[in-house]
Amino acid sequence: MPSFKITVAYDGAPFSGWQRQENGISVQELIEDALRELDQRDVTLHGAGRTDAGVHALGQVANFTLVREIAPDAVARALNSQLPFTIRVVSAEEVPATFHSRFDAKSKTYRYRIVNARIVSPFEHPYAWHVFEPLDTAAMAEAACFVVGRHDFAAFQTVGGATGSTERLVTTSSLTTGTDGLIIYEVAGSGFLRRMVRSIVGTLVEVGRGRQRPEWLRDVIASRDRGQAGQAAPAHGLFLVRVDYT
Amino acid sequence: MPSFKITVAYDGAPFSGWQRQENGISVQELIEDALRELDQRDVTLHGAGRTDAGVHALGQVANFTLVREIAPDAVARALNSQLPFTIRVVSAEEVPATFHSRFDAKSKTYRYRIVNARIVSPFEHPYAWHVFEPLDTAAMAEAACFVVGRHDFAAFQTVGGATGSTERLVTTSSLTTGTDGLIIYEVAGSGFLRRMVRSIVGTLVEVGRGRQRPEWLRDVIASRDRGQAGQAAPAHGLFLVRVDYT
Repeated sequence: MPSFKITVAYDGAPFSGWQRQENGISVQELIEDALRELDQRDVTLHGAGRTDAGVHALGQVANFTLVREIAPDAVARALNSQLPFTIRVVSAEEVPATFHSRFDAKSKTYRYRIVNARIVSPFEHPYAWHVFEPLDTAAMAEAACFVVGRHDFAAFQTVGGATGSTERLVTTSSLTTGTDGLIIYEVAGSGFLRRMVRSIVGTLVEVGRGRQRPEWLRDVIASRDRGQAGQAAPAHGLFLVRVDYT
Repeated sequence: MPSFKITVAYDGAPFSGWQRQENGISVQELIEDALRELDQRDVTLHGAGRTDAGVHALGQVANFTLVREIAPDAVARALNSQLPFTIRVVSAEEVPATFHSRFDAKSKTYRYRIVNARIVSPFEHPYAWHVFEPLDTAAMAEAACFVVGRHDFAAFQTVGGATGSTERLVTTSSLTTGTDGLIIYEVAGSGFLRRMVRSIVGTLVEVGRGRQRPEWLRDVIASRDRGQAGQAAPAHGLFLVRVDYT
């Protein structure tokens, strides 16, 4: 009974999110369907974290155990041959049966893409939030720094998402700018609350619009009140970049 | 009666190509529909060149004349408000009534993208030709050089595409490599025959696969025989990058 860890990239647009659910097609469901084909039995896929409908992944991680003895490369090939091109198993490796993609994860990295320009290219449109109004990226970068550290991030949690502690450790929170108005926000930490990254981005954009000063972000965190933060940014700008285990 | 030159980007996937035709929706047709809304009459749009079904554009150029007096920026905004997000007017300027996007074009630049890897990312899949078998990019780069110059390119023209001379001047033909198996072929010249770029790429890939030596490409050109060249590469890897007028 070999156990496997797979790294999965997907375009979130056609899916109802990572997690299997009643309505819509999920990434988990399609991979579990492919695993059933491969192992001729029901196989449960454990993901490192749920991504919401429309959120993309470059390096989601998941694990499962098969009855069939098979090499990791053959697992990746077999899954990819069943999956649509919007989902790719980019790597597979054998792991101890005790490995769990969610419980063993040490850090996750997310990226959020904004295009701050009058016109957004057809090639960026599915993968970035289009903000027309000019943003003060220096003020946003300053505000982004206040996210780093161990904080109670209850202010950035979506309504109804709470289970247990809302304290998390954020190790990276930085903003960079590219060509044609591209703004990239990257954030890494021990874990994230539901909609936390998109709520941070929505709050940073309030600062970028000049409606609030950078220090306001520190006050929002301290308030632990969801009503203080900016609206969650749209799902299609968000990418789960990678999950680290060391 | 002001005349305008517009630069247009589009994702070719949903369209039957640039040119209006009986079956399928073309980019020209959708822009002409938007122009009719704007000018309250039928407006003819002249494109710098046809792109085939599935081919993308970063900088297609087209021209038209309106009855209505309107600023170029307002033209771009009005068209973009009518067009799907897969088509964007990225700039607009007023030009003399004598300007013609096709007849006045001095040079066109195309880019062809290949992913030469075992697995292609969901984000590259719609925008690159996936070649699984390892390619010798040094040999391809060597072969690409033989395209430069004034040649009779009849060997790279699609069947039934011939009208008049098949001689063209190519000023740039170069291959570069990126990360994750990305290979980019860029070609610029005075003009291109129908399917010429995709036929060149198909021929370069034959060299990359080791089936032919780089010098073979020179022989293919000299043959002026369509039967000698490689198969045309798929449309979805091709981008019309820009059209130059000086």
